[in-house]
Amino acid sequence: MNAPTSAQQFIPAVAARPVPPAMIEALRALLGERCSTAQAVRDQHGRDESAYTHVPAPQAVAFAHSTEEVAQVLKLANAHEVPVIPFGVGSSLEGHLLAVQGGISLDVSRMNRVLSVNAEDLTVTVQPGVTRKQLNEEIKSTGLFFPIDPGADASLGGMCATRASGTNAVRYGTMRENVLALELVTASGDVVRTGTRAKKSAAGYDLTRLMVGSEGTLGVITEITLKLYPLPEAVSAAVCFFPSIEAAVKTTIQIIQMGIPIARVELLDGRTVGMVNAHSKLSLREEPMLLMEFHGSPAGVREQAEAVQAIAQDEGGQAFEWATTPEERTRLWTARHNAYFAGIQSRPGCRSISTDTCVPISRLADCLLESVAEADASGLTYFLVGHVGDGNFHFGYLIDPDSAEERALAERLNSALVSRALAMGGTCTGEHGIGLHKMDFLLSETGAGAVDLMRAIKRALDPKNILNPGKIFSL
Amino acid sequence: MNAPTSAQQFIPAVAARPVPPAMIEALRALLGERCSTAQAVRDQHGRDESAYTHVPAPQAVAFAHSTEEVAQVLKLANAHEVPVIPFGVGSSLEGHLLAVQGGISLDVSRMNRVLSVNAEDLTVTVQPGVTRKQLNEEIKSTGLFFPIDPGADASLGGMCATRASGTNAVRYGTMRENVLALELVTASGDVVRTGTRAKKSAAGYDLTRLMVGSEGTLGVITEITLKLYPLPEAVSAAVCFFPSIEAAVKTTIQIIQMGIPIARVELLDGRTVGMVNAHSKLSLREEPMLLMEFHGSPAGVREQAEAVQAIAQDEGGQAFEWATTPEERTRLWTARHNAYFAGIQSRPGCRSISTDTCVPISRLADCLLESVAEADASGLTYFLVGHVGDGNFHFGYLIDPDSAEERALAERLNSALVSRALAMGGTCTGEHGIGLHKMDFLLSETGAGAVDLMRAIKRALDPKNILNPGKIFSL
Repeated sequence: MNAPTSAQQFIPAVAARPVPPAMIEALRALLGERCSTAQAVRDQHGRDESAYTHVPAPQAVAFAHSTEEVAQVLKLANAHEVPVIPFGVGSSLEGHLLAVQGGISLDVSRMNRVLSVNAEDLTVTVQPGVTRKQLNEEIKSTGLFFPIDPGADASLGGMCATRASGTNAVRYGTMRENVLALELVTASGDVVRTGTRAKKSAAGYDLTRLMVGSEGTLGVITEITLKLYPLPEAVSAAVCFFPSIEAAVKTTIQIIQMGIPIARVELLDGRTVGMVNAHSKLSLREEPMLLMEFHGSPAGVREQAEAVQAIAQDEGGQAFEWATTPEERTRLWTARHNAYFAGIQSRPGCRSISTDTCVPISRLADCLLESVAEADASGLTYFLVGHVGDGNFHFGYLIDPDSAEERALAERLNSALVSRALAMGGTCTGEHGIGLHKMDFLLSETGAGAVDLMRAIKRALDPKNILNPGKIFSL
Repeated sequence: MNAPTSAQQFIPAVAARPVPPAMIEALRALLGERCSTAQAVRDQHGRDESAYTHVPAPQAVAFAHSTEEVAQVLKLANAHEVPVIPFGVGSSLEGHLLAVQGGISLDVSRMNRVLSVNAEDLTVTVQPGVTRKQLNEEIKSTGLFFPIDPGADASLGGMCATRASGTNAVRYGTMRENVLALELVTASGDVVRTGTRAKKSAAGYDLTRLMVGSEGTLGVITEITLKLYPLPEAVSAAVCFFPSIEAAVKTTIQIIQMGIPIARVELLDGRTVGMVNAHSKLSLREEPMLLMEFHGSPAGVREQAEAVQAIAQDEGGQAFEWATTPEERTRLWTARHNAYFAGIQSRPGCRSISTDTCVPISRLADCLLESVAEADASGLTYFLVGHVGDGNFHFGYLIDPDSAEERALAERLNSALVSRALAMGGTCTGEHGIGLHKMDFLLSETGAGAVDLMRAIKRALDPKNILNPGKIFSL
């Protein structure tokens, strides 16, 4: 089988913009050893967790230690018209980090200090390279936590850039709801602050929300002020197995429609449970499974759990297992946390093409079941997990990356799923972002008029198109 | 005493842009009688609830019945370079509706249909002229409600435009968190949709959030999709009186820091309670008062109420009065709902200059107490109410609108309060917006860099500066 062409991988064919030697020299003068042109470093910064192979690497990698250095790098890049791709930990899934127009990778992972914890205000300010696990580790003595958990131990800068969410979003919201303020560096190298530590504000355009989800195309995030939450007095987790995906989804829909403030409700299908059993040497029932978590006062948690159990049992849910201690909960959640790697390892050498549709909750069963039937009929191997409380789920189509046929089949399934979700009032991406991979889907979803507004904003804030060019939309 | 000059009222001196007769003729051809140049209609559309007097009226008022008509009006305005000021019910507080550069008022209050209720998804789509009370009346059979309550029975389009919030925001968030999708008409008359009915999305720039709070300067909102919530199974309201404002605020701070999901927590100072007693013939204790509301299951509400009562009693709170039936709750809330009018009526002929600072919760006591001391020392009459759970409060300085001295004194107090709030990490406006009145404060709050980004966005989306020009920032 031939290696896939760029077209088959949906990498737009745009000429790389050269990085002039003077730019590299200036970066070396600014950063010394922290400007690298070593092939291994460049390669590591030119890929992500997407299924793209044969990816274009940046021509240099700049490791910034401070906002001032980020500003200097951007001033140089602006003067030389060199693309800059901000880099955190490289866990994005949609080709965000690929140097499709050449340029440099600006690695902010070493800007990883928690700058200030305001426990009494339930806020924290961090640098963009702080990861979500690091943050929760550093603040654990405060009795507070940051709930957003996209699975990967992503950098908070990256989570801002892609408007990430994950398992706790059904209760606590996404990055959209949890970023209070930002410091960012503009394309011209100016340092700008958006927002304050006040919980709400009506002060001018919501630049904070504009930057959250802009995927590095409008500015480089250098500081983030986040909301924190009191650790719940009581936490209870449960697993439950269902006779069908439909029964599990119907249970979820009722939980949401009744307004039960569930903290997490995650679906795995039976096949994915099987992959997890093989990967983690577990012996879970290989049936559709809901993993749930309840946060609140002891009485509140009990009340939520009882209500949910009654709904689930009406839908045929059984084999409930409950966990209240942290250790027991961790064991229950193993299945969910390992699902991605269990899926990847179930087919040696494969890559996963992830779907990310999110639909209004009433359409979740239809959208999911039609898509499962279609995927089953295709014969392609996949895993299936879902943040079903939000109407968001992911197929991971497990393809041989060297098989153009499998790649095309996965993309056809993905495309059909997106069309289905859009027709139901949903979105092509709940949390992974557009990147390279969903640019056509964005246009279908929002229409040319909205994309034109995005383009106009991009041109206004980045007239030389140096900030992660070629992502979200073509210019 | 002389009538105040424009400068004393902070109305920027910008020449009105003429509305050519051809524009009026074209509007008449399009709208017939629904294009009015009657002085009374123009005057009514050129003012709001702010303290501005001698305000500039628009040269005509266009009453639109459909998105298509809004689009046609904007195409005409764009061709003729005529300012367009969208108008809902006229309840804004910061001069948003004043025709400072001339032009026309585009009244969308007759676009007041609830277009679709998706009860099973907890969403509703409305036209911009629907008011919040109308919406709740029309959906009451669904068992759902829309919680955002800014006091006035504002239009939902206006509430979007100013990023409104109010008494329930402490639990349910503001318009920022509760608008899922919009239809809007751009400056060039194109109809654009942003967002979907999915609960979350990472699909490109967050145009929805950019439009929410843009005060009519980036587009005219013609459809809004909102989140709804299940009516709580149980609701309980309480009033409680405190020996000092400090004690009431300290109670509030502890409620928030403990993560108690209180639905409303509102402060009135003793003087304001006195105004309400006079206005509504009540006999409440004229002491600092908290009004609270709890939503949840019966057990959950009881648990919240007990926790709050214990905190309040530790701070000297007493004379608790509880209400659970709708009628009793309405009676308790009368004091809060009438506070604005009670304040205004306490001084015949006065106007209120409202402050709107919002600070991180830990600084609320300091910010409020220093500002009360300063206001008391000034001798100016005021009322004081606060959405204290969010760190947001309003002084209403009651001025003689013809007294330049009183106006200047109120503005000095306002300015000092804003400086104090900004130094504490807060914002000049929690929910009223910038309008005309807080343009200098926005610059102080966010810095020139952020305002320059806003200007760049404005120029990109409205190159002829026809959409509510002269508001938020100067161009």
